[in-house]
Amino acid sequence: MEFKFTKMHGLGNDFIVVDNRENNLEFDDKDKIKNICNRRFGVGADGILEILSIDDPDYDFEIIIHNSDGSEAEMCGNGIRCIAHYIKEYNLTEKMKLSLKTKAGKIIPEIMEYNKDQKSAIISVNLGKPELKNENLAIDLPEIKKDSYILNQKLLIDGREYKFNMVSMGNPHAVIFFNEDIDELNWKDIGSKIEKNPLFPEKTNVEFATKINNNKIKLNVWERGAGATLACGTGAAATVVAASLNNLVDRKALVELPGGNLQVEWNDDGVYIKGESRLVFNGIINV
Amino acid sequence: MEFKFTKMHGLGNDFIVVDNRENNLEFDDKDKIKNICNRRFGVGADGILEILSIDDPDYDFEIIIHNSDGSEAEMCGNGIRCIAHYIKEYNLTEKMKLSLKTKAGKIIPEIMEYNKDQKSAIISVNLGKPELKNENLAIDLPEIKKDSYILNQKLLIDGREYKFNMVSMGNPHAVIFFNEDIDELNWKDIGSKIEKNPLFPEKTNVEFATKINNNKIKLNVWERGAGATLACGTGAAATVVAASLNNLVDRKALVELPGGNLQVEWNDDGVYIKGESRLVFNGIINV
Repeated sequence: MEFKFTKMHGLGNDFIVVDNRENNLEFDDKDKIKNICNRRFGVGADGILEILSIDDPDYDFEIIIHNSDGSEAEMCGNGIRCIAHYIKEYNLTEKMKLSLKTKAGKIIPEIMEYNKDQKSAIISVNLGKPELKNENLAIDLPEIKKDSYILNQKLLIDGREYKFNMVSMGNPHAVIFFNEDIDELNWKDIGSKIEKNPLFPEKTNVEFATKINNNKIKLNVWERGAGATLACGTGAAATVVAASLNNLVDRKALVELPGGNLQVEWNDDGVYIKGESRLVFNGIINV
Repeated sequence: MEFKFTKMHGLGNDFIVVDNRENNLEFDDKDKIKNICNRRFGVGADGILEILSIDDPDYDFEIIIHNSDGSEAEMCGNGIRCIAHYIKEYNLTEKMKLSLKTKAGKIIPEIMEYNKDQKSAIISVNLGKPELKNENLAIDLPEIKKDSYILNQKLLIDGREYKFNMVSMGNPHAVIFFNEDIDELNWKDIGSKIEKNPLFPEKTNVEFATKINNNKIKLNVWERGAGATLACGTGAAATVVAASLNNLVDRKALVELPGGNLQVEWNDDGVYIKGESRLVFNGIINV
């Protein structure tokens, strides 16, 4: 099949975005997706984002997120920003607040700024409410009460004690705050060990965070199954939740990630992350 | 500037190919080239290949090879195959044998097969004659006669003795033959150490080769300055020269590299490598 695509990224998390509202393209072959996403033999991307039409007044579009290994992702904050930007760029609807059906349920990104010349948009997405109670977390701590929060819990790795805060944003996060510069730390090695620690039956994402000031946190994320990445939206959200519970910030902060910045705010109706999406180029491929 | 491009690869060595015969595009900004070649924030490629028109009857086109770091390369066998394929694909000339001006001088690729539907071409390129005499090699062996070949020269790395053969294809190659499967070896570590050994004043490429049969060699190349790569044309050429001098093959062999195969033949007028080029997609970008 031949199809047009737009290459976009959110903080370096990059996607091939495809308008499949006519439903004339098929992305059901895992090997084909792997080949398209291969960075030397194909277009190269972390995934393919399909925009589908939907016959349900609750939603504007349905979204399918294909990972580069051919599997499907339930949700992806960086990808959703690219989707919203694409919908604005090509005027698929006039709305600035979109209702998208994903495998993780309804997601409502809002286009806050849009600059066609700069090929940039700023999008806000509500990632939902965090889960904080022990009984709702993917953690094996039966000695702690079911409704307790897991804050500053001690964990020994290679003879050094780390204090982590457990937050679920639909996926598990162990957030650790450091006074020192995390670049000085062998954090990838530590992250890999914490990820697989038996305390976390479903493994865990690990956040290495340093408070810069009351409004700013520097963050590196070791992503479960993916390792060190340039940016992780749910990780940034979990970090601001954990920082708020530790009185390091007041429920909002700019989170500085290697791929760029995310503005995070924890309201009563959920954790909002606001960040950039960029359009890189347009292409046409026959596969 | 906005420009159209074609993404192509030769054995996984991938390029953004641009028709700049009108000379209306400028690639003189190193940062711009780095950004375009960035695999997450840009198009992603090992380099940009510019095709220019030339006012000299000796040549059909002039070629500029931009590396992804913004520097210029003198020659690149995989890139030249992509250039020849592009010229055929878009019918820039009727000729099947092209005379290209590069920084390394005249290069004459020949289109042997072309399949538009498969987006594939088989191209043969003469890489020129190998240099084999001690005095013409980038090696520090004054105790050996100036006009001697450097064959099966011993080198001790981490307590193990390796025998290398020194071949220059315009760039230096230390070719080592193994009886065992090289995948079993910690060859990247060894390659990195040989590359920087003081025996090689300009550093060296290192070839880890295993003879499969009289017509076939399996090869992994540690490229000087680049590390383990999917394919290296001059490395494959140097390996068949060294194998011939050691009577392992009869001046020709299929060389199996991680990115694909190259057919190599050492004739009196030089070493020919024949291999595939593939067209991946077409794009348009504004930078």
